Amino acid sequence: MMRRYWWVNHKQTVWQEVEGGYLWSPKTEANGARSQFYENMREATPGDSVLSFANAKISFVGVVSDYAISAPKPDEFGTTGTNWSAIGWLLPVTWQELPLSVRPKSILSEIAALLPAKYSPLKPSNGNGNQKAYLAEISEALFDVISSHSKFNGLQAPAHRSSASDFIETIESEVQKTIENDVLLSDTEKDQIIKARKGQGNFRDRLFEVESCCRITGIENPSLLIASHIKPWRSCMSAVERLDRFNGLLLAPHVDRLFDRGFITFSDDGAVIVSPHLPLEDLVRLGLEESCKKHSGSFRPEQKSYLAYHRSEVFRN
Amino acid sequence: MMRRYWWVNHKQTVWQEVEGGYLWSPKTEANGARSQFYENMREATPGDSVLSFANAKISFVGVVSDYAISAPKPDEFGTTGTNWSAIGWLLPVTWQELPLSVRPKSILSEIAALLPAKYSPLKPSNGNGNQKAYLAEISEALFDVISSHSKFNGLQAPAHRSSASDFIETIESEVQKTIENDVLLSDTEKDQIIKARKGQGNFRDRLFEVESCCRITGIENPSLLIASHIKPWRSCMSAVERLDRFNGLLLAPHVDRLFDRGFITFSDDGAVIVSPHLPLEDLVRLGLEESCKKHSGSFRPEQKSYLAYHRSEVFRN
Repeated sequence: MMRRYWWVNHKQTVWQEVEGGYLWSPKTEANGARSQFYENMREATPGDSVLSFANAKISFVGVVSDYAISAPKPDEFGTTGTNWSAIGWLLPVTWQELPLSVRPKSILSEIAALLPAKYSPLKPSNGNGNQKAYLAEISEALFDVISSHSKFNGLQAPAHRSSASDFIETIESEVQKTIENDVLLSDTEKDQIIKARKGQGNFRDRLFEVESCCRITGIENPSLLIASHIKPWRSCMSAVERLDRFNGLLLAPHVDRLFDRGFITFSDDGAVIVSPHLPLEDLVRLGLEESCKKHSGSFRPEQKSYLAYHRSEVFRN
Repeated sequence: MMRRYWWVNHKQTVWQEVEGGYLWSPKTEANGARSQFYENMREATPGDSVLSFANAKISFVGVVSDYAISAPKPDEFGTTGTNWSAIGWLLPVTWQELPLSVRPKSILSEIAALLPAKYSPLKPSNGNGNQKAYLAEISEALFDVISSHSKFNGLQAPAHRSSASDFIETIESEVQKTIENDVLLSDTEKDQIIKARKGQGNFRDRLFEVESCCRITGIENPSLLIASHIKPWRSCMSAVERLDRFNGLLLAPHVDRLFDRGFITFSDDGAVIVSPHLPLEDLVRLGLEESCKKHSGSFRPEQKSYLAYHRSEVFRN
């Protein structure tokens, strides 16, 4: 896949994002309107380059280190694990500081013609940041001009590449703490909800009443099946959703990973939908190219609302 | 695979085993000698039936609900998560009480001829338990005689089928608590060791210095690779082993599951070894039949001691 170039206009949280190894945006504008700058969070692909623009200058360059996931605003991780009104896209990015900071305004004549005509991060007229912009796609030519002014001479091997798994683990631990402290839940309920996080306990047992095998590989061996949530455990709004046997599928481990990361989903009638973001090479290596063309069997009405959530919030189309 | 029948002579821990949903045995006799009664723990396969004999009577019947794993003695879970001298085989079994208890001694004339000639759970001469016996294989005929006397009329759908994953989660949580309370480790070390449990953090980063892709599928996409321990995290003796990049492989999620559960391993020269306990059907459904015939590439000397452990303690041959 072709490497792409991005430019982020950080809001107030530039330090949290750079130190934390990520970018975070809402999913839509406050009024619910779609924003290309937020949609771009899901377009960015591991290996893509990102310029970090904050306080009128570019001081960091980053490499996208995993695909975006649904996540609450990270500066709220510690205080509210279940405030899902604040849910957005979290994109893992490994940052490094540039040798020299670059003020785009001071080289505006050089870069104005290279700014994108649509969805530009800067106003070409005066070089001020576009207030609406967050993650904007830029050309390699523009990236190279900024790189050259910043004396950037290639990426260092980072000490740590932040991955989606790292963030999911952190988020789920916080949600779990919230559940453990919930005075409205009994100890038995807490135990069942926490076991459901790993696809265990009552959730897994009852899922076998609804599903009998992996819908893609046909695996029936319980030792090789993962009890996967359709609407992710971390995104559920209630104990009922976390324990609902209709909010689950039995999947082979590699199918579970693809489903969990939004590389495959299902239509209501049971067709498998493969994301254009999953390299065909990977699908072939996983031995799933043919089985993803087959029909997976129909779904029950109770499963369909969870599938609708998966298609709109997890799947990468 | 054919269903098999087993008979366990519980030791003092009958109640823990029946209530906990498992059987546990050492790996060898106290003097280090091999015991068929302990080897049988790894022979038992999900779906097999087990008669529970304790205090001179058979009062429970069980169904093996997952394959055996290496595990410390469960009654020590709470007090010593890292006492690996007490490591043995743990076999998940879902038990139910029989309508009537059966005293084998009182029906000895009927069952004596049905007892196995070798590795019998009872002495055919007097019907006393064989002191050396733990898990013994019996014939379907013997199972049927006991069933009939007990008025056993088939298995109930169990409320919960205990799985290896449940026990692994419990064991690892206990090991983690021990690490968190270890005054000899700094907070940074604890953080790294705990992240390594999930194949994250420094362990994962440094593993990429040694391994570049899944040795079986060739997957290189980091989002689809699991940083798997060769010697399992829960079985490691030290922080050094848990963080050692040579104690890891990058594996696709389904390959990770097979490796973790002992269904595949590697020879020192890199050949893939598939367990006879893995149904060929499952290997085919996972799309791995052909790739497991290929050579996976050679190993470094530092990896080989971990592989030797995996072959002897994790792999099911």
